[in-house]
Amino acid sequence: MSYCVGILLDQGLVMASDSRTSAGVDRVATFQKMFVYEDPGERLFVVLTAGNLSITQSVISILNDGVEGKRDRVNLLAVPSMYEAARTVGRALREVYNDDGPALKQHDIEFNASIIFGGQVKGGRVRLFQIYAPGNFIEASPDTPYFQIGEVKYGKPVIDRIITPKTGLIEAAKCALISFDSTMRSNVSVGPPIDLLIYKRDTQRIGLQVRLEETDPYLRNVRNLWSEGLVRTFTSVPDPEWKI
Amino acid sequence: MSYCVGILLDQGLVMASDSRTSAGVDRVATFQKMFVYEDPGERLFVVLTAGNLSITQSVISILNDGVEGKRDRVNLLAVPSMYEAARTVGRALREVYNDDGPALKQHDIEFNASIIFGGQVKGGRVRLFQIYAPGNFIEASPDTPYFQIGEVKYGKPVIDRIITPKTGLIEAAKCALISFDSTMRSNVSVGPPIDLLIYKRDTQRIGLQVRLEETDPYLRNVRNLWSEGLVRTFTSVPDPEWKI
Repeated sequence: MSYCVGILLDQGLVMASDSRTSAGVDRVATFQKMFVYEDPGERLFVVLTAGNLSITQSVISILNDGVEGKRDRVNLLAVPSMYEAARTVGRALREVYNDDGPALKQHDIEFNASIIFGGQVKGGRVRLFQIYAPGNFIEASPDTPYFQIGEVKYGKPVIDRIITPKTGLIEAAKCALISFDSTMRSNVSVGPPIDLLIYKRDTQRIGLQVRLEETDPYLRNVRNLWSEGLVRTFTSVPDPEWKI
Repeated sequence: MSYCVGILLDQGLVMASDSRTSAGVDRVATFQKMFVYEDPGERLFVVLTAGNLSITQSVISILNDGVEGKRDRVNLLAVPSMYEAARTVGRALREVYNDDGPALKQHDIEFNASIIFGGQVKGGRVRLFQIYAPGNFIEASPDTPYFQIGEVKYGKPVIDRIITPKTGLIEAAKCALISFDSTMRSNVSVGPPIDLLIYKRDTQRIGLQVRLEETDPYLRNVRNLWSEGLVRTFTSVPDPEWKI
């Protein structure tokens, strides 16, 4: 399982992904699920992936080949807009489907892949998309300013309660980390390190990119304070006045 | 979707279920999912159900027929132990499977049903089981003193953080209600009224049974205090000291 979250704010983007991949409990490993394509000052794209690792890694290989000029129609650094950039990622997914889909079907393996894709092309808006396995996609809006993929449920309540488009970048990053903490606590197949990227609007370059290991002092502090705060909140809610 | 939770404590049991059933967004209705079989002072059983309503309602009909003497081998009020009681519920499930399983399969509909079953027979321990669609079951223990069925994820973190076998009955009931609040907030297909039952060990009778409507003042209070507490906890966690 994976967990990734992308948050679209007035000030920019917060993107985060875990790094654990498992195919059965005895086949657990660390794989990067965040990929950045940057032409500083001109364009910046962030890709977060979940699903079958063979599919998502192939998508990234195709996009990399495109950027290096080894492949036509999938060069993210040549697209004119965020819409065309999302289309480009969708094309890469379809290419993998054309290559692997039939064989996976023969083995009854679902073509399971989902992608969060965010960024900005100079002169355009910051935009955030969720791209599905068939390559189609939806876009985040002020009403729903975030997307999650992978193990999405445990980390959703805190995002629902905190995030609005007006939330600041650092505060949203804190919220994303609490969302990861809740997820990692309840699902052992989601695990650190956590890759986190902050993008500031109209810069077209990485604002901050960090990798937080399990032993990271801030992450530990968040975990303890959040857990203590929940228990304190629970205690502060009065008991029902029922007699038994 | 449904959500039910059963909690096994040193002092007894807390059992709770929602009442919403949906087969598509335009087919939402209220159905009871908590069923109690009581022979006061002698035995008490509580059944919570999730899954395909046609299956779980048939299970309850069979158990009711058994209690009324209209059917052999499924009379909960005649079993000598909690183990035999759980076996009895499993037999009722298998009977429904024998009747409906083949036809459901023809229509590619999964035989989807799960049950939480708890109670006590005089002279025995309070026990709590989760019974699967095939009629097999597992038992709660001090290490894992609760079971959830249906939409289980949103409401799990608070239970994991609060409940131990030493938790008191009223406090566990409060925790169950917060767990329901988190679930209802994140999944519209889980909804009130909430049926809640408290069973006090060695009484073999209902300790408290209430149905909490959406407008219930205590439920509303819990919802507001919990939400405010989470936001306050979030605010109290310091921001990361990153410069962007």
